[in-house]
Amino acid sequence: MSADPFHQADVVVAAIRNAIEGNPQLAALHQPEFRGNEWEYVKDCLDTGWVSSAGKYVEAFEARLAEYTGSKYAVAVVNGTAALHICLLLAGVNAGDEVIVPSLTFVASANAVSYCGAIPHFADVSEVTLGIDVNKLEQYLSDIVINRDKQSFNRHTGRPIKAVVPMHSFGHPVDLEPIVQLCERFNLVLVEDAAESLGSWYKGRHTGTFGRLAALSFNGNKIVTTGGGGAILTQDESLARQAKHLTTTAKLPHAWNFDHDQIGYNYRMPNLNAALGYGQLERLPSFLNRKRELTARYFGEFAKVPGIRLFIEPEFAQSNYWLQVLMLDSPDIGLRNEILRRTNESGLMTRPVWTPMHKLKIYESSPSMPLPVTEELAKRIINIPSSPNCAGEE
Amino acid sequence: MSADPFHQADVVVAAIRNAIEGNPQLAALHQPEFRGNEWEYVKDCLDTGWVSSAGKYVEAFEARLAEYTGSKYAVAVVNGTAALHICLLLAGVNAGDEVIVPSLTFVASANAVSYCGAIPHFADVSEVTLGIDVNKLEQYLSDIVINRDKQSFNRHTGRPIKAVVPMHSFGHPVDLEPIVQLCERFNLVLVEDAAESLGSWYKGRHTGTFGRLAALSFNGNKIVTTGGGGAILTQDESLARQAKHLTTTAKLPHAWNFDHDQIGYNYRMPNLNAALGYGQLERLPSFLNRKRELTARYFGEFAKVPGIRLFIEPEFAQSNYWLQVLMLDSPDIGLRNEILRRTNESGLMTRPVWTPMHKLKIYESSPSMPLPVTEELAKRIINIPSSPNCAGEE
Repeated sequence: MSADPFHQADVVVAAIRNAIEGNPQLAALHQPEFRGNEWEYVKDCLDTGWVSSAGKYVEAFEARLAEYTGSKYAVAVVNGTAALHICLLLAGVNAGDEVIVPSLTFVASANAVSYCGAIPHFADVSEVTLGIDVNKLEQYLSDIVINRDKQSFNRHTGRPIKAVVPMHSFGHPVDLEPIVQLCERFNLVLVEDAAESLGSWYKGRHTGTFGRLAALSFNGNKIVTTGGGGAILTQDESLARQAKHLTTTAKLPHAWNFDHDQIGYNYRMPNLNAALGYGQLERLPSFLNRKRELTARYFGEFAKVPGIRLFIEPEFAQSNYWLQVLMLDSPDIGLRNEILRRTNESGLMTRPVWTPMHKLKIYESSPSMPLPVTEELAKRIINIPSSPNCAGEE
Repeated sequence: MSADPFHQADVVVAAIRNAIEGNPQLAALHQPEFRGNEWEYVKDCLDTGWVSSAGKYVEAFEARLAEYTGSKYAVAVVNGTAALHICLLLAGVNAGDEVIVPSLTFVASANAVSYCGAIPHFADVSEVTLGIDVNKLEQYLSDIVINRDKQSFNRHTGRPIKAVVPMHSFGHPVDLEPIVQLCERFNLVLVEDAAESLGSWYKGRHTGTFGRLAALSFNGNKIVTTGGGGAILTQDESLARQAKHLTTTAKLPHAWNFDHDQIGYNYRMPNLNAALGYGQLERLPSFLNRKRELTARYFGEFAKVPGIRLFIEPEFAQSNYWLQVLMLDSPDIGLRNEILRRTNESGLMTRPVWTPMHKLKIYESSPSMPLPVTEELAKRIINIPSSPNCAGEE
């Protein structure tokens, strides 16, 4: 590691500027772009008065999303957190269960578990994928799991372990096949947190189609945005029907009666937001191409910089490169902070990875395996400007 | 009551047609109208790229809402259910508490209580307001409440009773002053479910400003819509700050760090939806005027019809008349259904009141006082077309 963090930070600023061609307009972390039919579709909602829960764009958006991802079903909801909450409920997660979640994730992954009254149980991640390290997890579960009636229990807490929720961090797919096998071996439901990975593929198949259920997000900083929004993917017709039912107050269909057969949620995506997303999905291929071009530029720039490397997708993955990841060769919070400070002061928006979940007071008493890689990565990762337009207009 | 429901239904169809001047375009229950600056503001979001959680319209919408209602603070959220959920959490409702809710309400009122792990305890309503009957509630609480350390406990269940959540049904204000007094007497927190009552006033003061907290809704069928949306009103700066914090993942402010000090929610309203609502609020006075004009027309028509009357605001209230309410003089499910069938077949959208909460399987085991008026009103109420444009264009 360089002995001079000031110099190192200067080098990073220069490398980013070179890659994005010095245009300060392009220096946001991830800026949405509306250059397609978005306005036409949004305006159509206002013209027709269909802005809310009913309207054609919700269905059209769901259909286009299913088609693009190759998922049999897609259910649009109000945001990614809501999507994950419903996925977990439909996975059978009950109050008092444990759910395996990476510690290196956005807080919504753990919160969605809490909303079910369940307890997140934190797993370490791999430096190669930034997601759950399946080898470590398998070893760990072999140690702590007792199998009773084909159900896994944590021998230390006595609680059932119900599901595993890998997160495809910054769009980079985790190694899904061994996770699928692990879930089969331990009778755990696989729920993919694909909030960041629309447009990311694992061995030719879209992320979010491996789990029994998966959650997508279309927040404003995501690769495709609906303002706020999310979706549930599943290959199971019954689960898709239940997802729609639970997210629309569990109202039974009737010409006028109000009967609700479950404690449901008001999680539907408004038609206005779906219209925006419908237009955005048309633009996704362009966004992905330009983000790969940006990756190539950053790769070229950072290949010359000692002590730092750009995260590159592993062989099995085609990543959407939602957020570009710089990794210091070794943990160095001083250098990390100096780079964050200098880049942000220079108008280049950067940020560190999330505080690991087990370091938040609200989750410090949750069970976890040893988390050495998570703790190291928390001091090594910096996200840098990643918008499609950083690689130019279409 | 008429012996001939077929004839009675014909009379109702004719009366509605007369009031709305026979225009079938106007026959929706409540249709939004976008004839103001909504386009301009929504397009501004797309032009600037600010469609999501950050952006000027969320703040502008909150400020305009606070100004209009005379509330010190307004916090925009993703929908009315989310607003009520957060209101209850901030009212101190904990798992295992009981919360007084009218049985005659939309299911979200009870669900929001369930989301807190608390138990809705159902109150009967008054025929004069369609909301909680405060005299009955006072009598009932005097019977069942044990006071310990200035806290009310249900002597039958042993659980704390924490809050009262009156709902201003169809926009018609409940009798708030005696409810405020009752809450003081029994140390209960008053949370107003004002989801339907934007533009409704009680003795000159806006509904939703009497409780410690209140929830508004801007769903597509509401008097003002944001596509999907809601807001929390409060007069307490600390509660307003907490509401914003809890609805935005409880993230602590920092230039780049991700620290969250509570299990928060992703309940923020997107800027895109706030822009629509900002435009809609400019139009609210026009909506209210035309809805009062419609009320006058309906009143004129139904004054001639025996066995049925139009619900009119009590003396203390100025109602937004969100949804017009027809009331059969006495419970008659056969007549009610015949009117519903005939009006809907004639292209006039009508609906009954919600199935009372204590009649839903999911809440049938919840505690409740005797609910005779609720049960009667469930067989007496019919909502009829109520859009502003039923009384003509501006």
